[in-house]
This record gives sequence, C-alpha cells and structure tokens, in this order.
Amino acid sequence: MRGPITELIARKRDGGTLDRDQLAALIDPEVPDYQLSAFLMAALLRGLDEGETRGLLEAMIASGERVSWPWPVADKHSTGGVGDSTTLVLAPLVAACGVLVAKMSGRSLAHTGGTLDKLEAIPGMRVSLSLAGMRRQIEQVGVAVCGQTPQLAPADGRLYALRDATATVASLPLIAASVMSKKVAAGASRLLLDVKVGEGALLREAESGAELAELMVTLGRDHGIDTVALLSNMAEPLGAAVGNALEVAEAVDTLRGEGPPDITELALREAVALVGDEAAVRRALDSGAAFERFQRWVAAQGGDPEARLPRAPIVAAVPAPRSGVVQRCHARAVGELVMRMGAGRTDKDGQVDHAVGVLVHRKRGDRVQAGEPLATLHARHQPDVGAMAACFEIADQPAEPEPLMLGQIGA
Amino acid sequence: MRGPITELIARKRDGGTLDRDQLAALIDPEVPDYQLSAFLMAALLRGLDEGETRGLLEAMIASGERVSWPWPVADKHSTGGVGDSTTLVLAPLVAACGVLVAKMSGRSLAHTGGTLDKLEAIPGMRVSLSLAGMRRQIEQVGVAVCGQTPQLAPADGRLYALRDATATVASLPLIAASVMSKKVAAGASRLLLDVKVGEGALLREAESGAELAELMVTLGRDHGIDTVALLSNMAEPLGAAVGNALEVAEAVDTLRGEGPPDITELALREAVALVGDEAAVRRALDSGAAFERFQRWVAAQGGDPEARLPRAPIVAAVPAPRSGVVQRCHARAVGELVMRMGAGRTDKDGQVDHAVGVLVHRKRGDRVQAGEPLATLHARHQPDVGAMAACFEIADQPAEPEPLMLGQIGA
Repeated sequence: MRGPITELIARKRDGGTLDRDQLAALIDPEVPDYQLSAFLMAALLRGLDEGETRGLLEAMIASGERVSWPWPVADKHSTGGVGDSTTLVLAPLVAACGVLVAKMSGRSLAHTGGTLDKLEAIPGMRVSLSLAGMRRQIEQVGVAVCGQTPQLAPADGRLYALRDATATVASLPLIAASVMSKKVAAGASRLLLDVKVGEGALLREAESGAELAELMVTLGRDHGIDTVALLSNMAEPLGAAVGNALEVAEAVDTLRGEGPPDITELALREAVALVGDEAAVRRALDSGAAFERFQRWVAAQGGDPEARLPRAPIVAAVPAPRSGVVQRCHARAVGELVMRMGAGRTDKDGQVDHAVGVLVHRKRGDRVQAGEPLATLHARHQPDVGAMAACFEIADQPAEPEPLMLGQIGA
Repeated sequence: MRGPITELIARKRDGGTLDRDQLAALIDPEVPDYQLSAFLMAALLRGLDEGETRGLLEAMIASGERVSWPWPVADKHSTGGVGDSTTLVLAPLVAACGVLVAKMSGRSLAHTGGTLDKLEAIPGMRVSLSLAGMRRQIEQVGVAVCGQTPQLAPADGRLYALRDATATVASLPLIAASVMSKKVAAGASRLLLDVKVGEGALLREAESGAELAELMVTLGRDHGIDTVALLSNMAEPLGAAVGNALEVAEAVDTLRGEGPPDITELALREAVALVGDEAAVRRALDSGAAFERFQRWVAAQGGDPEARLPRAPIVAAVPAPRSGVVQRCHARAVGELVMRMGAGRTDKDGQVDHAVGVLVHRKRGDRVQAGEPLATLHARHQPDVGAMAACFEIADQPAEPEPLMLGQIGA
C-alpha cells in the first residue's frame, strides 16, 4: 500500500526534487528493493540535479563508517577500462615521490578488468587488509591497495547491484554518487579520477565524460578532497596486455621504463596530478625508485615480486586476415572476448583465471601484411582466433592515431 | 548481473518498443520484483503504445485461466469512486431485463469503496463463489456478483500490488491492461465500463478519462467483447451515502424508485448501455421487477434481504459553519475521512467496519443556513465533525450543478 516512500518515488517520477533526508529515507535498508529500483529508474529518466546528487552522496556516505587517516593520503579511481594496469604503476610511483597511497579497489566487472584480480595474479599477494593493516603497511612502505571494506558506504553496494540488474547504471548522478561515496568514506585527501571515454568505457561520448568528471570533482571538493579528473581515451585497449598476469608483467615493464607508451604516459600524467611535481615523478620512474617501491609493496602484502607469474598452456598467434592499415582494435570486443576466455566474470561470484588473456600487437595506424600476427592469445582451452581477429578493423586508407589524453578537470 | 530481462528494461528505458513475447518475459513470475518495478516506472515515464498495451494485455490474460460461459453474460467495471453503489442497482436491473450478469468485484482501496465490502454489509451474504457456483446461481436467478478467483490473470494481482507501492499506478496503458485482463479472463460478452473523472477518481481530467475509455473499448473489442464506456463525474460523492451499509440502504431505495437522482440516472444509463432497450430498463425498475430480482439474488448468495443492516452507535450531525451556497462537497476528502472512520482499508489486510459512514445532505448549488446539517456521520468512535465540515466549500455566489454524465465511448 502507499506510504511515505511511495510519495517520494512519485515526486521524482513527476520531475520534482528531493532533499537529503528524503534521499536518505529512500536508500534506507528497510526500503524494499522493488521500491528502490522504481526510484532509480525515475532518477535515471528524470535526472537528479546537483543538490540532489550532493544529498544522495551524503546519504550514501552516512550509511556506513568513514575512515580518518593520521596523515594525508592519495587515492585513485578509474571508471573502468580494458587492459588498464595503470594503478599497479601509479601507486608505487606516487609513493616513491613521498605521497602516501591508500587505495581500495574493485574486481573485474563485465568487459572491464579489476585491480584486485590483477594483484591476485602475483603469487602470494593478499588483497584483503584490515584498516589497521593498511595503516601499518602505509607507515612501512607508503602504499596499500586492497579490497573494499563492507563498512564503507554499504548503501552503494546494494544500489550498485540493483542498478546492474535494472538497467539503471547509465546515469551520471548515480555514477558520481556511487564512486564518490566510496572515495569520501575511504578518507583520502587527494583523489585522481581517470574518466575513460570511448567504446571500451562505460561512457562512449567525451561530453558525458567531461560532465561526469566535473560533477565528481565538485563533489570531491565539497568534501574537502583535492580532486583532479583526467579524461582518457578508451577506444582501444590500453597497452598491449589484456588479462590479469599479462597486465602485471606489463606494469612491471612500465616501472622498469620499458612499458608501452600509452600506459607510461597515463601513469606519468596521473602521478603528476597527485604529486604536483613533474620532475620528481620522472626521477622516481627513471631512477628505479618506483620499481623498488613496487617490490616492497608487493612483499608487504605477502606477494613474491620475483615469482613466475601464471602462464596459460596454449599460446596462439592471431594472423591478419588481410593487408592494410589497422583502423581500430575494438576495446569492448577485446574485453568481452578476454572475459569469456576466463579472465573476467560473467557473474558476480565467478572465478577468474589469472593466466589467460591476449597481447595486442597492432593498433590504430599500424600497417600489417596478411598473415602477420595482430595479437597473441594466451588461453586455457582451444582459443577462438577468429573472434580475436574480428576485433580488428583493417582497411586500405591510412589512420591517424588518436590522442590518449582528452582533457583534465581541476587544477 | 545483466541478462535478457535487463536488456528489455533498457529497451523501454530508451523509449523503444517491446513485443508480446518480450512483455510476457517481463511479467513472468520468475522475474524478481525489483526488475519488474524498474520496468513499470520506465513504462509509465516512456509510455506504452497501443501495440504494446495489446501485447501486455495478452500476456496478462495468458498468465492464468480464462472462463467460458455457456451463454452470453454481461459484466461491469468502475474505475473507482466515492459513494458509488451503482453495481448493487445495475446487476439486478439488467438481470430483470433478461441479460445474465456474471461479475467479479474488488474490495475498497484507498479512498474508494469496493462492491464486495458493500455486499458483505448484508447479513449472511457470501461473496466467495466458485465458478460452478456462479454458473448455478446465474441459471437460477440470472445474476452473480462475487470476489475475483485467483486463477484469472494472476499477473495482474502482482503488478497491481507493485504499482501501488512504486508510484506506477497512474499510467493509462497499465490501468487499461490491468482492468481488461481481469474482464477478458472472466469471459463476458458485453462489458460496461464506468470511467470516473474528477478529484474523487483516479483520473482527475476528463481528457485522460476519455483516452482511457477509448483504449479499454478498443482492447475489449479486440477480444470480441461488446464494450461500452461511460464517462461520469466524480467531483462529489455519488448519492448521499458513503459507507458500506449506508450505501446498501441507498441502493435498495434506488431499486424501489426512491433513490437519489444521480445514482438512479447512472444506473439507468449503464443498464441501457448493456440491455440496449431503454423502455425495458425503465419498466424493470418502475415495475419492481429489479427490486424483486435484487431480493432473489441476495438470498441466493445466503444474504437476508429483510435483515436490519448494521448501524453505527454514534450518529452526529455536521452543522454548516456559515450560510451560503455549497460550491463543492469534495469527494476525495469525504472518501478519505470515511476510510479513516473504518469503512475502508488503510492497508491491504485491514478489517472493514460495515456500519460507519456519512450521509451527505447538501451538494453543489444547494443553499444552506449556518447551523443547518450539511451531513450526518455514523461513527464507531467520537466522530470528527470538523473534518467532515471541512469537506464542504461554501461561498456567497451561486453555483451551477455540474453534469453527471460526461460522455460515452462505443455504441
């Protein structure tokens, strides 16, 4: 029967605005899922204005605990990409510059990878740390990266699961409140947001990315967090590696100064945004200090930085079906293929195969002869070479490489 | 995680159209409530076109059984009003004209009354009949009115409960599909729809009422039902009585030719639409044949047509706070007050007090002197005379009575 919650849903349905207390009432754990999901659909279709987004964010933060660190710490969030191992480079690089890093990460979702799954590809690596454990580790090695503790913004976990099942993910205010609720609750002083744009990302249009970035930077600053957002291109996979262990190896290469130019560039840009001193960041990478910090960090979380990473039993080249110029290696298609190969999850509780994945050898603008390898699949079972070849678009005309960095919001 | 149902919700969210199979998949009992309610909100805000409404209706009918009567029977549905005892007059009146009546009714909901609750105010009256029992009774007395059997359009029961809790009631396609699913499944050959318009009704605007009526008539005819819709005014309570036993007494008065003009007019208009012969309808009322049929009908369902109806212990006059002309006796306010007095339900499983209610003595256009009774409350506990007085708007200027009948859709 109708009641106060129904009235609040009706208000949003009719295009009205809701205040913080009303939004808090809607996301209360006692409200049944069916009422919350009707509200989420109304919010997606009618929109939430900036005041409502602030109110929702506050209500989500207030649903749980809030960490308070004894020193300023930096944090980072990416809206999700394909082949993006930047966090594994960024975290020790920033720490090597003297900026403490406390980051809680997620797991792979749909076609996008997750930092926790990548870290777990390293033999022995623990990703479940208590807050006290994080604090001890940050004091010792300056950096800790682990899973979300369920005490922070628990309302977000419930909202996220409902949105995923009810086609209400693609709302900028709901995305912004979701991301920022976890980040504010996690207590960082500085926050770098990597808002990815393009067909491999949640947002396909640069304008939506800029709007989301603006909104998250505003929300972060509201809560006293020095927030900067970078907009980056996610039309093609980042780097060459897509898949957990392959991406770890690529991150190590990058820390050694031998990584792909795009990952190196993105990690440097992100680090400069957090550290504020480009020369110091360059020095930390070039001197090996960042790599040395990576090794100490991994060891502190029980990982063996020297151990051989898991390898897939089948390695298969993907030959170019024709000669020409690569117009695009489609990031989403690659992400979905690698997920189906076992590197990601098709459902929330699925197991991840750390060894499988793909190395992409050709991207937009590269010439290729028929039969030359476009990519190499690392597979557990008979690999679908044709499906991987179909991720590439090859034509006769030349193709200009696209810029990686699409903009920056915040100082 | 995302799946086929999520894709269907996304399609409606983005303004796409769904076919019958897709709509059937959405209302499948296995689909969780939270997905169905997100779809319902998307359907309310994005709309359903006529093809989708047809598809939804078919899927809802297919969710259960469908009655097939051995003879043509007539049915009636009202979209819900205040003080509307017309069914109690209409059913025996139509039966007295030789048209068989098989009607399944609902209970009171929010501020509107329900035929079943009114019937149960008659001592001994049974409203739970099997299909076989209905058939036997129709053969004997030509008329049966009882509760819904849960085998007919069970999807509607679930959708209705969800819509009520998620502010998704007010969608014309959803209303039309809901009403017509039960009516088509109930197997009538002729159907009279009373679409009420005004502040005491679900729909406040005459245009929405006409649109809903057109849609339901189209859907009814699609399924071979000779369907006629009347649009009637629900700005003020119908008749004088609001409350179960009071309305039964008023219906009996009407069957004896001594009822209020509006109920008499509405019942005659409805009966003519179903019977098709105005002279025969008049004759059945004036000759007492309709009243005699009412007595046989009530007796057939175990009721005692001579028994004293329940009476409330407290009877209190509601004096006019000033002299003037009644501009309006607000139907919704009266309906809500009478519901709170116990005549209706504030929640689905609530008990109904058959004795309580109000008799309205003055309506739009009536002159009244300060202190003269506007209404009489029949209450179980200390009645709120002031609240009832506040249902009336009294001013100095004259007020033209409004027409009761606002239109007819269908021959």
